[in-house]
Amino acid sequence: MYEAFWKSAGAAADISIASWTSLSYFSDVTNLCWFLEPQLAHQIRRLHRLVGNAVAGEDRFIIVGTGSSQLFQAALYALSPPDAAEPMSVVSLAPFYSTYPPLTDYLRSPLHKWAGDASKFAGDRYIELVCTPNNPDGSIREAVLCSGEGKTVHDLAYYWPQYTPITHPADHDIMLFTLSKTTGHAGSRIGWAVVKDRAVAKRMIQYIELNTIGVAREAQLRAAKILQLVSDGYESPNPDKEMKLFDFGRQKLAARWHKLTEAVQASGIFTAPSFEPAFCNFTGDVSENLPAFAWLKCEKEEVEDLESYLKEKGIMVRGGSRFGKEARYARVSMVDHDEAFDLFVQRLAAMS
Amino acid sequence: MYEAFWKSAGAAADISIASWTSLSYFSDVTNLCWFLEPQLAHQIRRLHRLVGNAVAGEDRFIIVGTGSSQLFQAALYALSPPDAAEPMSVVSLAPFYSTYPPLTDYLRSPLHKWAGDASKFAGDRYIELVCTPNNPDGSIREAVLCSGEGKTVHDLAYYWPQYTPITHPADHDIMLFTLSKTTGHAGSRIGWAVVKDRAVAKRMIQYIELNTIGVAREAQLRAAKILQLVSDGYESPNPDKEMKLFDFGRQKLAARWHKLTEAVQASGIFTAPSFEPAFCNFTGDVSENLPAFAWLKCEKEEVEDLESYLKEKGIMVRGGSRFGKEARYARVSMVDHDEAFDLFVQRLAAMS
Repeated sequence: MYEAFWKSAGAAADISIASWTSLSYFSDVTNLCWFLEPQLAHQIRRLHRLVGNAVAGEDRFIIVGTGSSQLFQAALYALSPPDAAEPMSVVSLAPFYSTYPPLTDYLRSPLHKWAGDASKFAGDRYIELVCTPNNPDGSIREAVLCSGEGKTVHDLAYYWPQYTPITHPADHDIMLFTLSKTTGHAGSRIGWAVVKDRAVAKRMIQYIELNTIGVAREAQLRAAKILQLVSDGYESPNPDKEMKLFDFGRQKLAARWHKLTEAVQASGIFTAPSFEPAFCNFTGDVSENLPAFAWLKCEKEEVEDLESYLKEKGIMVRGGSRFGKEARYARVSMVDHDEAFDLFVQRLAAMS
Repeated sequence: MYEAFWKSAGAAADISIASWTSLSYFSDVTNLCWFLEPQLAHQIRRLHRLVGNAVAGEDRFIIVGTGSSQLFQAALYALSPPDAAEPMSVVSLAPFYSTYPPLTDYLRSPLHKWAGDASKFAGDRYIELVCTPNNPDGSIREAVLCSGEGKTVHDLAYYWPQYTPITHPADHDIMLFTLSKTTGHAGSRIGWAVVKDRAVAKRMIQYIELNTIGVAREAQLRAAKILQLVSDGYESPNPDKEMKLFDFGRQKLAARWHKLTEAVQASGIFTAPSFEPAFCNFTGDVSENLPAFAWLKCEKEEVEDLESYLKEKGIMVRGGSRFGKEARYARVSMVDHDEAFDLFVQRLAAMS
């Protein structure tokens, strides 16, 4: 979805890396997170300040990861006591991101285990994952559990102005972000965590040291450049070329949500969530929630498995059961290539 | 150690990456390892063919990892049955690389557990790690265990001509390599595995999908360029500028080993392993084993903890007990910066 935007950026957005640079494991020996490139840390803080979506000043630890999945695992590792008799329960309100359960359990670590829908959880020892705006349904969320011993991890991958109104600077213990959802650069595998507590940050860093001994420096350098261009587009705009990433993303998503809503109405057999507009501090205007996914429900009684039903019609989606909900739900990507998206809405509209 | 070499490479060795490229998670949807850049796979195969250190043709799977530590973990995951009653025992002949035990056990996965020195292991179900030339002592090794149910992982990080004579193309089930030891680019976090069996390759890829959803594409692109320059240096040499990485590395290491041997003799209280020269198929000559580490033993009766003893003299080493041996041994890096290495040998020679 973002390719056209970055094509328009031209050669000024290229990066060049000399063969004799960035040889060492270490990016900054003075930083607790010794594998974090200083210019990336700077651009991350600068962008959060510009957008106003998260408190990420010098009194917060920035930890870079090989994508936010690695940081998710680092957070579980950091928040699970190494010597507890029972694994930490990891929960999230359904529908929850379908990758949380396998990421928690694939090594069958006794440190933590997936315990399903947070609304059905009883107990004090847990890690609650709060994804907001939520993948898959775009809802705006807060933690549903509340206990002195409970911990939260906020997955804010989609808390950017192209997807949702920025209503306040988030300020939680552990907040996860990812370049892939911010700017489209999924292949760089760059995520970052903003962490309040030093001991937690230290354990997360230790996980990344063991898991991959840091994060590719080339990818960090490119991420720094990309984030710099995003901030520059608003803070030092070029009069000859408008480079406003979030505006580009919003326009694209607004047009797609318009098409999707029409297709849903034309078919008459689906419903999609609708959202109240809200005032966005970043745009200075009331704006829509335009999630990166549409969470469709099929209202046709006989369709119990929407994933299979749509597959027969040539539409690839992820079914509701993977997100802890009924199979008559399915998640559809709103951030695919133009052609793929247009084909999808055509096929959807033709159904009845 | 390699910085001077790459500085001499000049601008031809730089890479440039445009902002709109490599956006997607996918590097090659036609490959089982869908996150592997095709040009990196090509340059890996080309270099192994040139050097003759490993069988890595089209009938072998190449899997890229975020450093070889990630591939090590992927191999453990792939070789440990998901439903076994007991964890797989992971062993290696002492002295073994000190990071193997924590990498096996840090998540306390019931899939596998560290079981120590391979020479003391009794049982049929195991994964034997064979590091050759060995970290820390530079010895040339083969598997010491042999059972129908046993598996091996060959860590060939140092099986390159700057460190050791290339006596044959290695051809094992799983072979691990890393850019950091091949060319000095540790910060890129690029490792690769050469794997025979499709099912094992598939499980390793699945691990990397879950762990980090692939490997940074920028780092892969730079690695491809770096490896290309190494092969070009031998296959299409530039008459104006000699760029022979392995020759550079050998000269450097030979000079350092000479200095170290002198210092060891001057002190009179240490011994270091000595190796028989062997014919190297790559250089076409008899050559020395020049390990990336020196494995020192202190012959002074009263020195029981060599790490602490050297620390007092301002020499930082890793003590023998971390490698499964007596504390009167210690591992010293031979691939540090020139200044650090020279200071170390001066201090060593002055001891008695």
